[in-house]
Amino acid sequence: MTEANRRAPLSADLLPASGAWRPGDPVGQRRFVAFDPDRRFQLEGGGSLKGVTVAYETWGELNADASNAILVCHALTGDSHAAGPSGPGHPTEGWWDPLIGPGKAIDTNRFFVVCTNVLGGCQGTTGPSSTNPETGRPYGSSFPVVTIRDIVRTQAAVADELGVAKWLSVVGGSMGGMQVLEWGIMFPERVHSLAPLATCVAASAFQIGQSSVQRSAIVLDPKWNGGDYYDAAPNEGPHFGLGLAREQATLTYQSEELIDTKQGRREKDVMDRGFTPWQRFAVEGFLDYQAEKLIRRFDANSYLVINKAMDLHDVGRGRGGLQRALARITAPVLTLSISTDGLYPTRQQQFLHDEIVSNGGSSRHEIIHSKAGHDGFLTEHQAVGAALKPFLAEIETKLTNS
Amino acid sequence: MTEANRRAPLSADLLPASGAWRPGDPVGQRRFVAFDPDRRFQLEGGGSLKGVTVAYETWGELNADASNAILVCHALTGDSHAAGPSGPGHPTEGWWDPLIGPGKAIDTNRFFVVCTNVLGGCQGTTGPSSTNPETGRPYGSSFPVVTIRDIVRTQAAVADELGVAKWLSVVGGSMGGMQVLEWGIMFPERVHSLAPLATCVAASAFQIGQSSVQRSAIVLDPKWNGGDYYDAAPNEGPHFGLGLAREQATLTYQSEELIDTKQGRREKDVMDRGFTPWQRFAVEGFLDYQAEKLIRRFDANSYLVINKAMDLHDVGRGRGGLQRALARITAPVLTLSISTDGLYPTRQQQFLHDEIVSNGGSSRHEIIHSKAGHDGFLTEHQAVGAALKPFLAEIETKLTNS
Repeated sequence: MTEANRRAPLSADLLPASGAWRPGDPVGQRRFVAFDPDRRFQLEGGGSLKGVTVAYETWGELNADASNAILVCHALTGDSHAAGPSGPGHPTEGWWDPLIGPGKAIDTNRFFVVCTNVLGGCQGTTGPSSTNPETGRPYGSSFPVVTIRDIVRTQAAVADELGVAKWLSVVGGSMGGMQVLEWGIMFPERVHSLAPLATCVAASAFQIGQSSVQRSAIVLDPKWNGGDYYDAAPNEGPHFGLGLAREQATLTYQSEELIDTKQGRREKDVMDRGFTPWQRFAVEGFLDYQAEKLIRRFDANSYLVINKAMDLHDVGRGRGGLQRALARITAPVLTLSISTDGLYPTRQQQFLHDEIVSNGGSSRHEIIHSKAGHDGFLTEHQAVGAALKPFLAEIETKLTNS
Repeated sequence: MTEANRRAPLSADLLPASGAWRPGDPVGQRRFVAFDPDRRFQLEGGGSLKGVTVAYETWGELNADASNAILVCHALTGDSHAAGPSGPGHPTEGWWDPLIGPGKAIDTNRFFVVCTNVLGGCQGTTGPSSTNPETGRPYGSSFPVVTIRDIVRTQAAVADELGVAKWLSVVGGSMGGMQVLEWGIMFPERVHSLAPLATCVAASAFQIGQSSVQRSAIVLDPKWNGGDYYDAAPNEGPHFGLGLAREQATLTYQSEELIDTKQGRREKDVMDRGFTPWQRFAVEGFLDYQAEKLIRRFDANSYLVINKAMDLHDVGRGRGGLQRALARITAPVLTLSISTDGLYPTRQQQFLHDEIVSNGGSSRHEIIHSKAGHDGFLTEHQAVGAALKPFLAEIETKLTNS
């Protein structure tokens, strides 16, 4: 029962303490908006940040009257690279690449598409791995709690910078959908439509519980060091803890049936000459692979901060409850569910739909029948595209004719 | 973002390094069978153990022809205390107390009920926290891999000791059900009936994945110390790791809907004066409570060993596959499913049922409609009892008339 080889990197290269993008790394397709360095950005939870920067990417062209802009919002471990290939500065292909591009469901021949890295993130936007201008050191353990509302206010600043007064649509799944809903509530005058997918109006106890055990996994890693690990030597970051959090999460992102169908009882290690404690089945190799991928491109503290922001998501907070908050939404809504989503079950999207309808608003709720589980909003491209494309076309037509 | 108070004991008393029962602790209702100390107990996985002891409890009286004996098999963190109150030596009430007793579904006025602590456990049966007679020190990291079949062979030795040639029934849920199935396959001549509840014929990839992340949580705790922590000071055992494993598991034992209904978004810590990273919602307090309870009565290495035994559960191994293994079952079978069990989904029990029936055997499969999730086999006493009671009565009648 030794720890040996429990989280060895897949390849021989050394892993930095954090997978965060840092100034000096290849910029790739990123652009940046830097907020006024002399004004503190006040956070909903009580803290503040000085010198906030937001990284973003765009695709397509903004038209003359700035009426064709779509904001795409990423989920927990996503970033601004929603579309495009991997390459210097972008360790992976765009997370929604099959949906965003010329002729695709979010057609960049027609739309100007924007995606920002969320506040607290680690791919160019200010987060715990960023240098605190007031100390010259990474924020680490001193980074404050941020909320989805804080994230949306940074996105509004980017919209101002780009000259987008009103989005044709704000679109996103999971935590991305949380941002979509807050856009509809915080800035009803700035959105023509909303597409919150596989998401919820308030994090459930089950979602919070899952987030909580993932945070505990990171904290349990002695290499997390209370949140101050950025000076650690290569391979000495909290990789095991962050990787374990990812493994736990993966078991909530894919459905039970999908995992069993794909992995079964296949063995990764030979077991026919006797059993040892750390022999692995294929599913364990699959989970380790998911962990290895994440620790190369993500920061453990960003995981803590963003995952906490998701738990705090509750559109009803300070607004007299869910019903009154949702009544502020005036834009037409498209929401999608994945039938086997055990993390964001269909009843959450149904609740949203029912509320919008009962307020006299326009809402469509489609259930994608798939074994994919929660990840379906990322993997069921055809079904997601088939719902999104006509919805966006309808809004576009309405705007053109108005 | 400090670690402070993340896993402080609920009360002020000191926690020993392991929650295992040790010789010298109050014996409670336990009795013991000690195997011949001069013979090594060979394990399926290749290892062996010298001087195995099995702790067990009994309720009711064995009748003259020893035909009224029922073996009840416990799940992952259970022990031999299936019924009866808590008290010295028994930190908790019997885990199936509402089902076992005079006049209850498993009626101790009629049946002689036996429950053994499993091999690898920590409540009196030989496990990693036991003293290795060959070294005079706790096994710790040197404890071998055991399988469900090894556990069943220790139970057969207890049956011999008690003079039970053939059980009226072998009954158990989850890992208990794995033992039930192995009894039917390894010893068809020793069982009159089988009641495997909320269980499976082979662990699924999803179950293995969940087990695997729970093992990783324990290993990640530096206080686990490679498995050798028994000499650690009070409060210096791998409590955080074992507790985190329990928290993860709890999220698979109760259904998403049950957890959300019970805990909702209630706050355990005050959040209306700003947000801090480790403020907890009620669900986090609930998970911590589950963790605290377990670490007081369980051993981290036993968790690793038993949880691995569950992953290795595959009745088809070395027997030409599942179908051929299940064809060895000749006893009538009652299997129960919980409709919302996401860990041992109904299709697993349906598969078992279908196989028994297609082999010309006798099987009944009942689905308990409940929000309880997997835990339903422990918590839905009325429904479980309502299915078990007539099943056992039928077998009893058949034996009386034969």
